[in-house]
Amino acid sequence: MSKPRKIAVLVGSLREASLSRKVAQAFARLAPDTLSLSIVEIGDLALYNEDIEGDVPESWRRFRNEMRDHDAALFVTPEYNRSVPGLLKNAIDVGSRPYGSSVWAGKPAGVVSVSPGGLGGFGANHHLRQSLVFLDMPVMQQPEAYLGGAGGFFDAQGEVKVEGTRKFFATIIESFAAWVERILADPER
Amino acid sequence: MSKPRKIAVLVGSLREASLSRKVAQAFARLAPDTLSLSIVEIGDLALYNEDIEGDVPESWRRFRNEMRDHDAALFVTPEYNRSVPGLLKNAIDVGSRPYGSSVWAGKPAGVVSVSPGGLGGFGANHHLRQSLVFLDMPVMQQPEAYLGGAGGFFDAQGEVKVEGTRKFFATIIESFAAWVERILADPER
Amino acid sequence: MSKPRKIAVLVGSLREASLSRKVAQAFARLAPDTLSLSIVEIGDLALYNEDIEGDVPESWRRFRNEMRDHDAALFVTPEYNRSVPGLLKNAIDVGSRPYGSSVWAGKPAGVVSVSPGGLGGFGANHHLRQSLVFLDMPVMQQPEAYLGGAGGFFDAQGEVKVEGTRKFFATIIESFAAWVERILADPER
Amino acid sequence: MSKPRKIAVLVGSLREASLSRKVAQAFARLAPDTLSLSIVEIGDLALYNEDIEGDVPESWRRFRNEMRDHDAALFVTPEYNRSVPGLLKNAIDVGSRPYGSSVWAGKPAGVVSVSPGGLGGFGANHHLRQSLVFLDMPVMQQPEAYLGGAGGFFDAQGEVKVEGTRKFFATIIESFAAWVERILADPER
Repeated sequence: MSKPRKIAVLVGSLREASLSRKVAQAFARLAPDTLSLSIVEIGDLALYNEDIEGDVPESWRRFRNEMRDHDAALFVTPEYNRSVPGLLKNAIDVGSRPYGSSVWAGKPAGVVSVSPGGLGGFGANHHLRQSLVFLDMPVMQQPEAYLGGAGGFFDAQGEVKVEGTRKFFATIIESFAAWVERILADPER
Repeated sequence: MSKPRKIAVLVGSLREASLSRKVAQAFARLAPDTLSLSIVEIGDLALYNEDIEGDVPESWRRFRNEMRDHDAALFVTPEYNRSVPGLLKNAIDVGSRPYGSSVWAGKPAGVVSVSPGGLGGFGANHHLRQSLVFLDMPVMQQPEAYLGGAGGFFDAQGEVKVEGTRKFFATIIESFAAWVERILADPER
Repeated sequence: MSKPRKIAVLVGSLREASLSRKVAQAFARLAPDTLSLSIVEIGDLALYNEDIEGDVPESWRRFRNEMRDHDAALFVTPEYNRSVPGLLKNAIDVGSRPYGSSVWAGKPAGVVSVSPGGLGGFGANHHLRQSLVFLDMPVMQQPEAYLGGAGGFFDAQGEVKVEGTRKFFATIIESFAAWVERILADPER
Repeated sequence: MSKPRKIAVLVGSLREASLSRKVAQAFARLAPDTLSLSIVEIGDLALYNEDIEGDVPESWRRFRNEMRDHDAALFVTPEYNRSVPGLLKNAIDVGSRPYGSSVWAGKPAGVVSVSPGGLGGFGANHHLRQSLVFLDMPVMQQPEAYLGGAGGFFDAQGEVKVEGTRKFFATIIESFAAWVERILADPER
C-alpha cells in the first residue's frame, strides 16, 4: 500500500478557540487513510518584506521547509472584512517568494471558509481562490465549502454535534482526497 | 480658510525602495492645499489575534490612534499573488476591531494599485474595494488607478520622469480631494 | 418641497414570480417620499453587439432613454452561477455604450442581492460592484444587502410577512435615499 | 491512436472583427493533434428565463446539445465593464439549467481574456473563474492568459504578427491540452 499523501492545513485564525481550527481538527479525524493532515502554523511569521530575503527570518525558513515537505494544501479560514485574514495572506506571500522558489507551485488545494454568520465566508473563499491561480495550485471546485453557522457545530469536547454536519465534513475531505489523487497521479505509472 | 483634510496614506509594501511608497510621496507633493497627506506606518503591527484584545499590543494602539486622527484614507499598494499584500490586509484587520470601534467607518477612501508589470495590480485593487464595502468607506470610483509599468516612473531623486504620468497622478489626487469634500461636506452648514 | 428623486430599479430575473421583483416592489412601497422608484424593464434587450450601433435596436433605444430619465439606480438581483445573471449584465453593457454616452455615469447606486439559499447572492453583489467602479457610479456601502432565505419573505399577496424583514427593507431603502441625497446634493445651492 | 478531445470554444464577443474570435481561431490552428477546437455560437441565445423551460427555445436546445457533444470548454472573451460580457454570461446561465442537467459539470476549462488595453481583461477572467467553481469545471491555473494590447496581434489575414505572441499562444493551447488530458485521463485504464 502506498504512503498517505501529506496535507498541510493552513488555519486563518490565531484565536485559541478558533472555529476554523476546530473544523480543521474535525477534518483530520474524518480524513480517509490515504491522507495525513497536519496543521502548519503561521502565527509567528514576520510580515513579508523582500528586503530581508538576504537574511531570512527563522520563522520564514521553518514555514517554507515545513510546506515543502507536504504534497497538498487545505485552507480553512474565517473571513475578515469580506476577504482573507491578513495573517493567512501573509503566510501565502511568505511561501510564494523568492521568485522561483514558491512552496505552493503545483500542489493541489482545497478551500474551506468558516463563519459564525450565514454568509459562510464566501468573500474570503473566492479571494483566496484568485491567489491560487497565480500560485498554480489546481483547486477542488466541488463541493464548495462555505461553512456558515459554525458557532453551533461543536460540543464542549470539540466533536461535531449534528450528524448532517459530520457527513458534510466527511464528504468534503473525501472529495478532497479524490482530487489530490487525481492531480498527483503519475500518468506514467 | 478651512483647515486641510487629513489623509492617512497606507502603503502596502515594506521595501525601502518600494514603488508604492514613491507613488505615495509623489501624491503628497502633488496634492492640492485642501489635503494634507501623511503615511501611517503598518510594518510593525502584530498579526491580528482577537485573544490579545484584552492586552493590546502597543503597535495596535499607536496605529489605531493615528488612524482616528485622520479624515480619510488613501491606499497605495502593490499586488501580491493577485490580491492585497498580507501586511496591508493585516493593518485593515487591526483597524477594524474590536467590533464597534473600527477606525475606518465612514471615512472616504481611494485605492491606487502599483505594479512593475502591465496589469497594474487590478486584483489587489478590487479585493481591497470589497473590504471597503464592509468597512463602510465611501470609495472614489473614477479615475481608476491601476499604475502599471511603475518601474519606469521615477528618476534617481524619486521625481516623476514623464509629464503625462505626473499629470495623471495630479488628476488622481485632485479627484480624490473632490471626492473627500463631497463625502465630508456638512449638508447643514 | 423638492421633487422626489427618480430611481431606476433594475431587476435581475425575468421569472414572473421572481423573488427579486417582489423585493423591488416592497422597496417601492417602503421608500420615503423623497424617492420615486420604478422598474426599468430589461427582458427585451437584444444581446450587446457593437456592430449594430449604427442601426440601434428599438429595445436599446427605449432602455437608454428610460435610464437617462432617472437620477439613480438600484439593482435588485438574484445570483446565477455565483455571479450576475447574464440578462442583467447585458443591460449594463447596453447602457454603457457607445463610449461617451453611458447612461450610468455619475448616478448613485445601490446593490441588493436576493437568494432563496443562505449565501444571499454575495457573489453577484460584489461582481456587480466591480462593474460600478468602471461605470463611475458612487455606490452605497452600508447597509450591505445580502437577502438570503428569500423564499420565506412574502405572503400570497406579496406582502412582507415578518416585521423584522420589513424593518430591514425599510432601513435599506431609507439609507439609500440618504446616500442618493448625499451624492446628488448641489454643493453650490 | 486515440481520437482528439473535442474542445468547445466560447467567444465572448459578437463583433464580426472581434479580437477574441481571432484569438480563438489562432488557437484552433496552433492546437496539438490531441485537441479539436470548434467555436460554439452563443449570439442567438434567448435571455435566460426559467419560466420558459417548459417550452424550451430552439436556440437553447441547439446550444445545450452542441455543448454536450464536447469534452472540455475554452473561454476566450473580452471584458465589458470590468466583468464578463452579458452575452457570454447568458450562455453560461442557459447551459447550467435546468438543475441537474448542466452541460458544464465536470468538463475541464481554460480562460483567456483579450483586450486592446493593457489590463488584459483581468476582471472578466476572474469573474468567469468564480462561476466555474459552482459549475464544477476544473480550470487550468497556469499559464494565466491576460492578452492585453490585442489590437496589434494580427495582420490583415488574421495571422499572428509577432513570433513571441505566436509562441505564447502555442504555450497556452499546449498547456491546455495537457490539462484536459490530466483531468479526463481514466485512472482505471
